[in-house]
Amino acid sequence: MSSENDQLVWKAYAVKDTKKWSEFEIINFEPKTFDDYDIDIKINYCGVCGSDVHTITGGWGGNTILPLITGHEIIGTVHRVGPKVTEFHVGDRVGVGAQIWSCLECESCKADKEQYCAKAVDTYNDKYPNGDIAHGGYSTAIRAHERFTFPIPKELDSKMAAPLMCAGITVYSPLKANNVGKGKVVGIVGIGGLGHLAIQFAKAMGAKVIVFSHSPSKEKDARELGADEFVVTSDASFANQWERKIDVLLSTADVSSGFPLGDFFKVLAAEGTFVVVGIPDDKLPQFAAPGLVLKGAKLAGSKIGSKKGIIEMLELAAKHDVKAWIEELPMKECGTAVKDVKEGHVRYRHILKMDLE
Amino acid sequence: MSSENDQLVWKAYAVKDTKKWSEFEIINFEPKTFDDYDIDIKINYCGVCGSDVHTITGGWGGNTILPLITGHEIIGTVHRVGPKVTEFHVGDRVGVGAQIWSCLECESCKADKEQYCAKAVDTYNDKYPNGDIAHGGYSTAIRAHERFTFPIPKELDSKMAAPLMCAGITVYSPLKANNVGKGKVVGIVGIGGLGHLAIQFAKAMGAKVIVFSHSPSKEKDARELGADEFVVTSDASFANQWERKIDVLLSTADVSSGFPLGDFFKVLAAEGTFVVVGIPDDKLPQFAAPGLVLKGAKLAGSKIGSKKGIIEMLELAAKHDVKAWIEELPMKECGTAVKDVKEGHVRYRHILKMDLE
Repeated sequence: MSSENDQLVWKAYAVKDTKKWSEFEIINFEPKTFDDYDIDIKINYCGVCGSDVHTITGGWGGNTILPLITGHEIIGTVHRVGPKVTEFHVGDRVGVGAQIWSCLECESCKADKEQYCAKAVDTYNDKYPNGDIAHGGYSTAIRAHERFTFPIPKELDSKMAAPLMCAGITVYSPLKANNVGKGKVVGIVGIGGLGHLAIQFAKAMGAKVIVFSHSPSKEKDARELGADEFVVTSDASFANQWERKIDVLLSTADVSSGFPLGDFFKVLAAEGTFVVVGIPDDKLPQFAAPGLVLKGAKLAGSKIGSKKGIIEMLELAAKHDVKAWIEELPMKECGTAVKDVKEGHVRYRHILKMDLE
Repeated sequence: MSSENDQLVWKAYAVKDTKKWSEFEIINFEPKTFDDYDIDIKINYCGVCGSDVHTITGGWGGNTILPLITGHEIIGTVHRVGPKVTEFHVGDRVGVGAQIWSCLECESCKADKEQYCAKAVDTYNDKYPNGDIAHGGYSTAIRAHERFTFPIPKELDSKMAAPLMCAGITVYSPLKANNVGKGKVVGIVGIGGLGHLAIQFAKAMGAKVIVFSHSPSKEKDARELGADEFVVTSDASFANQWERKIDVLLSTADVSSGFPLGDFFKVLAAEGTFVVVGIPDDKLPQFAAPGLVLKGAKLAGSKIGSKKGIIEMLELAAKHDVKAWIEELPMKECGTAVKDVKEGHVRYRHILKMDLE
């Protein structure tokens, strides 16, 4: 076990050019300035998220802070705690997700909705208010405020817990917010890193789960994960067959050009909600107003979740044995891992094991 | 006062060709088959709604049932009641809105959300399950199920009550559903038949009301109607000035190509809702996912309202003196009235007074 007296190393696998997005180099980096509520965490595992790929490839546009250290599904061990940290001790197993800071003073922060704070800082490719750069988890260590550090229940394996830090909470949070539970019919669109967890969480919450996918080859996995029904969306008649039958649709697929959003509004029940959790490189597709207006439906966005939500989710995962299906790689193979995500070859989450000393 | 023994006349101003959409002819028509829960109403007034124009001009596509009798902001007097009608008596003053029938058995109907019933029948240009045609209120009389007939409080003038049957409930219902009240900041987009009532209802509910319009000339009216602030949207910087400040945005303008939907998502507060109540001739405009996802916002549709909602709205209108600003015309001038609506010349609602015997 590490202790405050050991020297923590700050090394990472970083991309130096978004055009060479699968070429990672080992670099040394400076963490943010240490504050009273900060925790230094020695990283053991980091999941590979679709956001890593959008950012590394510059798909979201905007400025990329180079060299770029991605990764926000982090599990590690507390190495040092600031003088005002009350919740954690050296040696605790903890997680860090996609958000690393917020103001803690606004309405959103006070209402346990800190993910919607206007001043929210992302775990990587972002800056703290003082200008310090936020670096992600393809690295030996991370420094995080205790509000953005999460205790990991002992029932959960570290490798399994890593994908819950972003993929897990991203799907759990809107399922919870939309009152998914017994008697509700939930549609999960797409089976990937997020979708395979969404199926398990919706099932654990007691809902009937319908999986929508354009890949008939994924039916076996969908059913093994808990799907009650599997619907192939490449057959255009799916919307007629499922018209007005689904209370909540959660899309874990890219909702962008070519996505049949109008068909999915047909599938929604009266006053149903279609939830978007991902940010595609291009805009949301057009759809006709009647799908929304005539049945009082909603198109809702949802961003990761709060610490409160993450703690609830981890408890539910432990209780219902929600388990990511993972492929473990040593972190030096992060280039291969991000390529696999970009090309859709992962079933269903790459977990990188830290291999730097 | 009319009585069951008087002969009710079934005459109307109808359009026979959607290409000649401002040419109305007087016709005789057959009402639906009389059922036990039906009420025959002698029409005194009918408002002219944007939907009338969309339908008359064939803008929404689909099949138009010709000859077409539009009109769904109806105030009249009960002339005859079916044997199972319990709520109304001959001589009562009543209203009929944009919906004339629903199954009364589904979950939506049972939950006082009959506007979202899958079998809902519109007041005109629609058919009952038995094939009978539903005809609107540019006519001497209408036959309606008692669930779709509304008592008019004595405090409300008939002319003033007419626009509440569609425009009024269309804006009241989403304001209520989104918990508009004291402490909330509500944005009303567009000032027309719907918008001028939305400002008054939002104010009556206790909210702070910000009006967004591309016409600086409407500021005086907006403030007289109760607006706390008036924002001109033709100045592109409006979204920056109002960023994250509005809890609920209700658009009474056509949300179609050219509408700055992305800017309005910027204006929404965290977890805010943008409500669409109208159906434009073309699709909703594209916008970027971050506006929805990063602050957990929603794009919600809302269709008219339930009988329960209409009764609540009428009480609120009576209590707070919510008043449509109307221009009255004899019904023979319905061609002029629909042209005025199409060209945006009405401030803010045409009311047609029945002039046929």
